[in-house]
Amino acid sequence: MNRVCEVLGIEKPVIQGPMAWISTAPLVAAVSNAGGLGVLGVGFAPEGFIREQIAATRKLTDKPFGMNAIMFPDNLEHVTKIVKEEKPPVMYADTIAGLDPDLCKKYFDIWHEAGCKIVVKASFIDDALIAAKAGADVMIVKGWEGGGHVTFEATTVLVPQAVDLLDIPVVASGGLADGRGIAAAIAMGAEGFEMGTAFMVSAENVVHPNVKQAVIDAGDMATVITGYSTDEPCRQIKNELADELIAIEANNTKAAAAEMLRPVAESSLKKAMMEGDMQQGAVMAGQIAALVKEEKPAAAIIDDALAQAKEILAHLNEFEF
Amino acid sequence: MNRVCEVLGIEKPVIQGPMAWISTAPLVAAVSNAGGLGVLGVGFAPEGFIREQIAATRKLTDKPFGMNAIMFPDNLEHVTKIVKEEKPPVMYADTIAGLDPDLCKKYFDIWHEAGCKIVVKASFIDDALIAAKAGADVMIVKGWEGGGHVTFEATTVLVPQAVDLLDIPVVASGGLADGRGIAAAIAMGAEGFEMGTAFMVSAENVVHPNVKQAVIDAGDMATVITGYSTDEPCRQIKNELADELIAIEANNTKAAAAEMLRPVAESSLKKAMMEGDMQQGAVMAGQIAALVKEEKPAAAIIDDALAQAKEILAHLNEFEF
Repeated sequence: MNRVCEVLGIEKPVIQGPMAWISTAPLVAAVSNAGGLGVLGVGFAPEGFIREQIAATRKLTDKPFGMNAIMFPDNLEHVTKIVKEEKPPVMYADTIAGLDPDLCKKYFDIWHEAGCKIVVKASFIDDALIAAKAGADVMIVKGWEGGGHVTFEATTVLVPQAVDLLDIPVVASGGLADGRGIAAAIAMGAEGFEMGTAFMVSAENVVHPNVKQAVIDAGDMATVITGYSTDEPCRQIKNELADELIAIEANNTKAAAAEMLRPVAESSLKKAMMEGDMQQGAVMAGQIAALVKEEKPAAAIIDDALAQAKEILAHLNEFEF
Repeated sequence: MNRVCEVLGIEKPVIQGPMAWISTAPLVAAVSNAGGLGVLGVGFAPEGFIREQIAATRKLTDKPFGMNAIMFPDNLEHVTKIVKEEKPPVMYADTIAGLDPDLCKKYFDIWHEAGCKIVVKASFIDDALIAAKAGADVMIVKGWEGGGHVTFEATTVLVPQAVDLLDIPVVASGGLADGRGIAAAIAMGAEGFEMGTAFMVSAENVVHPNVKQAVIDAGDMATVITGYSTDEPCRQIKNELADELIAIEANNTKAAAAEMLRPVAESSLKKAMMEGDMQQGAVMAGQIAALVKEEKPAAAIIDDALAQAKEILAHLNEFEF
């Protein structure tokens, strides 16, 4: 049996990457009902919102689902209080850069005691090793081509390294939206697949329709990275906001730009996702948006991609070389 | 028959990416003798050096080989004069960003008349479409994870897009050093494979031994990108030079940094490649250096990678999902 499915208690080794304002209960439940793992993107949300989302998800599905926790000390304390009581089936440790081994161990132990399985998203191999040692059950390695918080290495480089060094199953993330990405991930040794951008256009998610259209319209070179100066760069679709952020970074020293960026970027995610402002809002899609061309139910997103991957794998033997 | 092999008259669809100071006659001939396509990295070299390298390569092999031409107007004039007389079997159009359709057509026609096949390296899809329309025979799409001049999109994103849009065979580049990368590229639809970093440690190449050791020692997160301010960023192994360049870019506006970078970076490539200075020299390896662990003859680099890919493809059908 596929180890990702076995460990997480799901039928299809597809994980929906957590996305603030997008992966709320309707999308999460749709993914889990389709046999994958839906993950609530609750980031730094207040307690009431998190509890409400968990309850709403449970109303819509009896399958396993996850919620993310940003791996910052204060946030972990806040989230873990909820985890102990709500016991979500899967905790998704959302790292940006630089895990503290003791911090990981402490919270992973508590989450395991609450009955959660632990999926970790790592951006580089040192973090993956630290998290695996602390007890992670599944390791997602996310390549630079993915949307939102940017990582440091490409999927082609991270996956083989992680597979060589880890005993737990590795899930590929970044640059996957159809069966070709999935077949490629399998060729590199991945046992599961995380997709984010592909689910931005799922029929069930309640994001503003302008966001779905922006992802569908996004072609080659549509995304840019902003926020290098803050050391937490994000990939997003190029628009007025992105141009403004890039100009600030070009015309100032790194330290000064970081200070100036915060007020401009603040609330920009909500502005896009809820109000549909495609110029001053941040639409954090990955580069693979270029391959995402239509709104579909989550089940079709998963099943079409897996079917295409199976078809590719069945014929790879015929490649002449 | 494999179309890349057919078009280029080679036995194995492996292209060695051109690298200044590294892919000179000994490496180029070794790759071509092993059945792949060796490519002279003659960049902006003077006429005498280019003619000398072509002659030296012809002494060492009677198989097809290529030479690169940076797609800047002055350089094209300079190189094409040599091409008309020397008639190298393959011209490798080396683009950084933004191809001029008329310029492409003009020189591609001249090169074709000289009997050359034309391989183009593109960094994004618009350039690939322009070059294909101008008559390119084979299209390499190079992902951001590759070494040297950095491109804009990851290999996972570029390859499927190129395959969807082009009729000529697509070669994947960036993030490929072993059979896993090759198998993944095939899964995405590529018909050939370009490797650069893997050949930096080939036994035949005459680069300073310190360079080979630096690539072998490079692990996860070993490379950084410098030169964003110049709009021609390069990926290289992190060292004192890279730190210095990054500090200049952090502490100045983009325009000021670009001015300050040139004198610091000047001659840094030669300093590494010929003098073995691993602190003030630039070692332009790709991220996949993390998987490159030993010096081998070029034939073994090619054959080991292809054998591993074939082994992977033979068993992909067994993947459970």
